[in-house]
Amino acid sequence: MNLETLIREVPDFPKEGILFYDITTILQKPEGLKASIEQIQEKLKGLEFDYIIGPESRGFIFGVPVAFNMGKGFLPVRKAGKLPYKTKGKEYALEYGTATIEMHIDAIKPGDKVVIIDDLLATGGTSKAAVELIEDLGGEVVKLVYLIELEFLNGRDKLKKYDVSSIIKK
Amino acid sequence: MNLETLIREVPDFPKEGILFYDITTILQKPEGLKASIEQIQEKLKGLEFDYIIGPESRGFIFGVPVAFNMGKGFLPVRKAGKLPYKTKGKEYALEYGTATIEMHIDAIKPGDKVVIIDDLLATGGTSKAAVELIEDLGGEVVKLVYLIELEFLNGRDKLKKYDVSSIIKK
Repeated sequence: MNLETLIREVPDFPKEGILFYDITTILQKPEGLKASIEQIQEKLKGLEFDYIIGPESRGFIFGVPVAFNMGKGFLPVRKAGKLPYKTKGKEYALEYGTATIEMHIDAIKPGDKVVIIDDLLATGGTSKAAVELIEDLGGEVVKLVYLIELEFLNGRDKLKKYDVSSIIKK
Repeated sequence: MNLETLIREVPDFPKEGILFYDITTILQKPEGLKASIEQIQEKLKGLEFDYIIGPESRGFIFGVPVAFNMGKGFLPVRKAGKLPYKTKGKEYALEYGTATIEMHIDAIKPGDKVVIIDDLLATGGTSKAAVELIEDLGGEVVKLVYLIELEFLNGRDKLKKYDVSSIIKK
């Protein structure tokens, strides 16, 4: 199924000049939801790994069903202050200012192999921070899979050492 | 499987005097992730409905896999300003101040039957707002399912007209 036709393009969101790719129109249709999850999962066929990691909050949407289907555990990466137990954080640059993501300090054991799943690869800033945080905890990122990749933002440049896949390229 | 044993109790989060039930320790274990989703899904057996609705962001964790497994569409309820297209909002009271949740105005057609899935039923404030928002859009809430219910907060009192189920009662 061609998922691209189910994306709704919303101009000027979240601000003027940005064309936003709305995935809620994929999720709304049972066949879109099914195909998006299955196509992400297909990219992981034959790969050995321990956990799926999904960044808050659209990473939860695609990461959890893939973890369920493949019999893996799921570990959330969340914005600062959301995880209740002891955390390790990683600060990263935004267009203006900075943001911090966190994981529980006992989410990963040294040597664990993890896959990052998210809806969108844009500049790669959040993904790079997530990779660094996982590596700080002793984990190994064996693959990153995105539903949509905005190629003109060159997010892959920040992730050169890693195996990066995407379903829809824009 | 007894999911209750997989919950991590974190005292004084998000503030002093609150005992927080951490579900990341359920999700981390493949058998916990599997059982939590299957036990929620079991509550919907034989029920006729069109969509699963999950409130941001832990509602995404349990709602999407159930939608995938049952061949339904998924509709997110999000915090104000997160959804890109035209939205309808519903304000509700917090302990201090108010918050607003939103859905896309074309997420639901009049007469659509929906199920709300979330991780936690506490005071029921967010759930009540979600139900009202769905009804404002013409939808019908046929069931609400929670992984954890904090019975001492009497959230069901706000949802008396509805079919409410939970897996773990605290």
